[in-house]
Amino acid sequence: MKRIAIDINCDMGESYGRYPLGNDAAVMPFISSCNIACGFHGGDPLVIQRTIKGARSHGLAIGAHPSYPDLQGFGRRSMKIAREELAALISYQVSAIKGMVEQTGGRLHHVKPHGALYNDIARDESLSQMVIEVVGSIDEDIYLVGLAGSVTASIAESKQTRFIGEFFADRNYENNGQLVSRNKENAVLHEPSAIAARVLHFCETGEVISVEGKKLQLSADTICLHGDHQNAVASARAIHETLSQVQIAIEKVSS
Amino acid sequence: MKRIAIDINCDMGESYGRYPLGNDAAVMPFISSCNIACGFHGGDPLVIQRTIKGARSHGLAIGAHPSYPDLQGFGRRSMKIAREELAALISYQVSAIKGMVEQTGGRLHHVKPHGALYNDIARDESLSQMVIEVVGSIDEDIYLVGLAGSVTASIAESKQTRFIGEFFADRNYENNGQLVSRNKENAVLHEPSAIAARVLHFCETGEVISVEGKKLQLSADTICLHGDHQNAVASARAIHETLSQVQIAIEKVSS
Amino acid sequence: MKRIAIDINCDMGESYGRYPLGNDAAVMPFISSCNIACGFHGGDPLVIQRTIKGARSHGLAIGAHPSYPDLQGFGRRSMKIAREELAALISYQVSAIKGMVEQTGGRLHHVKPHGALYNDIARDESLSQMVIEVVGSIDEDIYLVGLAGSVTASIAESKQTRFIGEFFADRNYENNGQLVSRNKENAVLHEPSAIAARVLHFCETGEVISVEGKKLQLSADTICLHGDHQNAVASARAIHETLSQVQIAIEKVSS
Amino acid sequence: MKRIAIDINCDMGESYGRYPLGNDAAVMPFISSCNIACGFHGGDPLVIQRTIKGARSHGLAIGAHPSYPDLQGFGRRSMKIAREELAALISYQVSAIKGMVEQTGGRLHHVKPHGALYNDIARDESLSQMVIEVVGSIDEDIYLVGLAGSVTASIAESKQTRFIGEFFADRNYENNGQLVSRNKENAVLHEPSAIAARVLHFCETGEVISVEGKKLQLSADTICLHGDHQNAVASARAIHETLSQVQIAIEKVSS
Repeated sequence: MKRIAIDINCDMGESYGRYPLGNDAAVMPFISSCNIACGFHGGDPLVIQRTIKGARSHGLAIGAHPSYPDLQGFGRRSMKIAREELAALISYQVSAIKGMVEQTGGRLHHVKPHGALYNDIARDESLSQMVIEVVGSIDEDIYLVGLAGSVTASIAESKQTRFIGEFFADRNYENNGQLVSRNKENAVLHEPSAIAARVLHFCETGEVISVEGKKLQLSADTICLHGDHQNAVASARAIHETLSQVQIAIEKVSS
Repeated sequence: MKRIAIDINCDMGESYGRYPLGNDAAVMPFISSCNIACGFHGGDPLVIQRTIKGARSHGLAIGAHPSYPDLQGFGRRSMKIAREELAALISYQVSAIKGMVEQTGGRLHHVKPHGALYNDIARDESLSQMVIEVVGSIDEDIYLVGLAGSVTASIAESKQTRFIGEFFADRNYENNGQLVSRNKENAVLHEPSAIAARVLHFCETGEVISVEGKKLQLSADTICLHGDHQNAVASARAIHETLSQVQIAIEKVSS
Repeated sequence: MKRIAIDINCDMGESYGRYPLGNDAAVMPFISSCNIACGFHGGDPLVIQRTIKGARSHGLAIGAHPSYPDLQGFGRRSMKIAREELAALISYQVSAIKGMVEQTGGRLHHVKPHGALYNDIARDESLSQMVIEVVGSIDEDIYLVGLAGSVTASIAESKQTRFIGEFFADRNYENNGQLVSRNKENAVLHEPSAIAARVLHFCETGEVISVEGKKLQLSADTICLHGDHQNAVASARAIHETLSQVQIAIEKVSS
Repeated sequence: MKRIAIDINCDMGESYGRYPLGNDAAVMPFISSCNIACGFHGGDPLVIQRTIKGARSHGLAIGAHPSYPDLQGFGRRSMKIAREELAALISYQVSAIKGMVEQTGGRLHHVKPHGALYNDIARDESLSQMVIEVVGSIDEDIYLVGLAGSVTASIAESKQTRFIGEFFADRNYENNGQLVSRNKENAVLHEPSAIAARVLHFCETGEVISVEGKKLQLSADTICLHGDHQNAVASARAIHETLSQVQIAIEKVSS
């Protein structure tokens, strides 16, 4: 069944002090929502504030993008943190972004964990329950964004909480629905036209083809585009044009 | 004119990871409001969360206690940070605490800058205006706590914003109303009975006696008690008992 | 076979900025070597410098105590860091302490990894090889301190590198020679006399009794005493007195 | 009097984790010495290690580039740190780099403070004395690099310590010999040919022309080139070619 609309999200606000990262301003015109770094893997308060202003001026749905506390590792290294402490780390980060969004007159739309935390949650029932509870206790209207088909997705569904399944436009999938590890060569797609074609195929069929050629059905309502890739802007533009031609709107998830 | 009530505040939640600091739990029964570290000079998310819970169970008014970003220096070293960035640093920290308080069903009551930031703001018109604007833009109901008689106090009054002047029970004053620098030997009072006597004198007369014997009239509605001093608990208890005997209530500022 | 001498080491310099930790000055008179935090789990440069001066004035053998980069978790949380990066993290930390010791006219005696890094290395062949190589490439005369009976000990022996096996005076052992996890109630011994008795038994027999009563033979030349425990000073004194009475000297390992 | 050789130095190793900065590899072939970030304003241990390897393979003189502890501000914000603590911060950073250089078989050649610390020292007698003492106590053979004509230069000369005066090829000068503040538009030169012409003029005459046209005589033996500028590589190449044509060698300072 062909979709008439899809959300496209991108991680943003990951610059830090003297260190620029990503192409936030150039990508914003082509997407419908963004996940803003909260200062623990990237993003300092000034970067966050400016990113919020930019996102609001483009009408993007704004999400918080909490991480393990590891600037040096960009949140990509798993850390063994006790659940109670991890819950507090997430509450802190989400609250910081939420308040700064509200300060500008906006509202926080979703929470999407970052990097190793995202992956650890996707595979772990106890962590999934924790993050669902934390987000719900902050605001029941806030969506949690997680890997489509993951443990988190199942639990969120059973609890009838707001969850948005995510499909990675520029990452290859294994037969079991997991992302191909970044350690492997073919983990990431780089060619804008190929990425756009994949997005279109997903919108028209709800499926993605794994690296071994298997058709995987994904229950996803948002597509992740990585903003720090070389071709991020070109890919964003290609997806935008491809979907425009077939009248599929790019818009945020709402109830 | 004798007061019938006064607020007593204490900095709290300044422990960090493996490092305990202060006597929060022991002091809470004797005070009416607290200022919780936001992670930049002390306080990690778990410490913050536990401090919020404790403060709420004691019915304390909860404030955010933002700082320069300097854990190593405990926020006691002035930093030359551009105003726009400093505003964002404060927004971030206040938002983090505000959200975590709201997550437990409470409301943020006030903002009190910490350490070198507190002192820099107290003396600087432009910084005072900035912090008044930042706090107002977050929530008009939130009070700003600052040094009684400071530049900040004057500006807040002229703008009719919510401001609470602060009197330091355990710090000596210069003739000009400034605090005696911590570099000097007599900067800090340690004797609980002396501290309690000063609080009582202030509540009965609205004045404090400077180190050189001058009477200073202070427009203050809260009294700061330092929780990391050796005698913090004894001082809190002494103040509490002294005020009880003369029927002066210890309660938070409200409108 | 009874020993005539044993080294007693203690972790030191773990204070950080405003946060005091441990009883370094009080413990120094009773021990023969110390491991100084390098700033990654505790210890800032000023703390490090003062600790080096204190250690030198007591004639202690000085070691570097490198950690995972995790001040908030005090280096007690395992982190998945690539081997090449971990090697660089250790080189950096050891170099910092080594240079600061040499600046005072002293020499670095040993390297003892801290917390989760210590435990991860003790169990992992590849990590053990890495740390042996790193320490050897800094200075062949520097000893590596590691868990007696661990993987590291075996590899160090086979490579004929300088290694000092460590026995924990205040930690209980499992039957397999591993430390009882800190998550269990009986992980740590607190009673000074019991700790001293264990040390004496080890010095006289080379063995320790596990929690289940099994005799474990340990090839250890240093005994670790935790300086941040409540009874650290009392334990240090008790060990010192007990060994004095039987003419066992407390002295650093030398070749 | 025309020079027959000049040193050209460049700040390097300022990348951090996920954040690349500068063009170290591309600039190295054209210069004779480098200043490696020590982790406090940029540079993590892995970045430092790789930069040392690269610098040694190009035969560059290697210096440590210590900073105020302010990654978020890239060491460009002055901090009020007590002298004893600042001395320890510098010892720590220099020691870390020194040890890592020696680990590869090299030797540390110089120390050049970074950013706000560099500027604060250049103007302050007490700080200049402190840094001269710290560097001397680490190793008497190590040079201190500082602003030509500064307070530091005078003190270093009077104490007969190893000092290298520095001329900024891509920064404009005031009439009084100070650098034009980065807050002003004409603070930085961008045009490679203009930068090269200035270097040539300095090498031939020992002077630089201020923004107001005044001839300033500078006692400098090294020229600083900023590696994070857009045209860094082009400027490095232009200087290299310009000096080659007149047989002025680019080589490190040695005694």
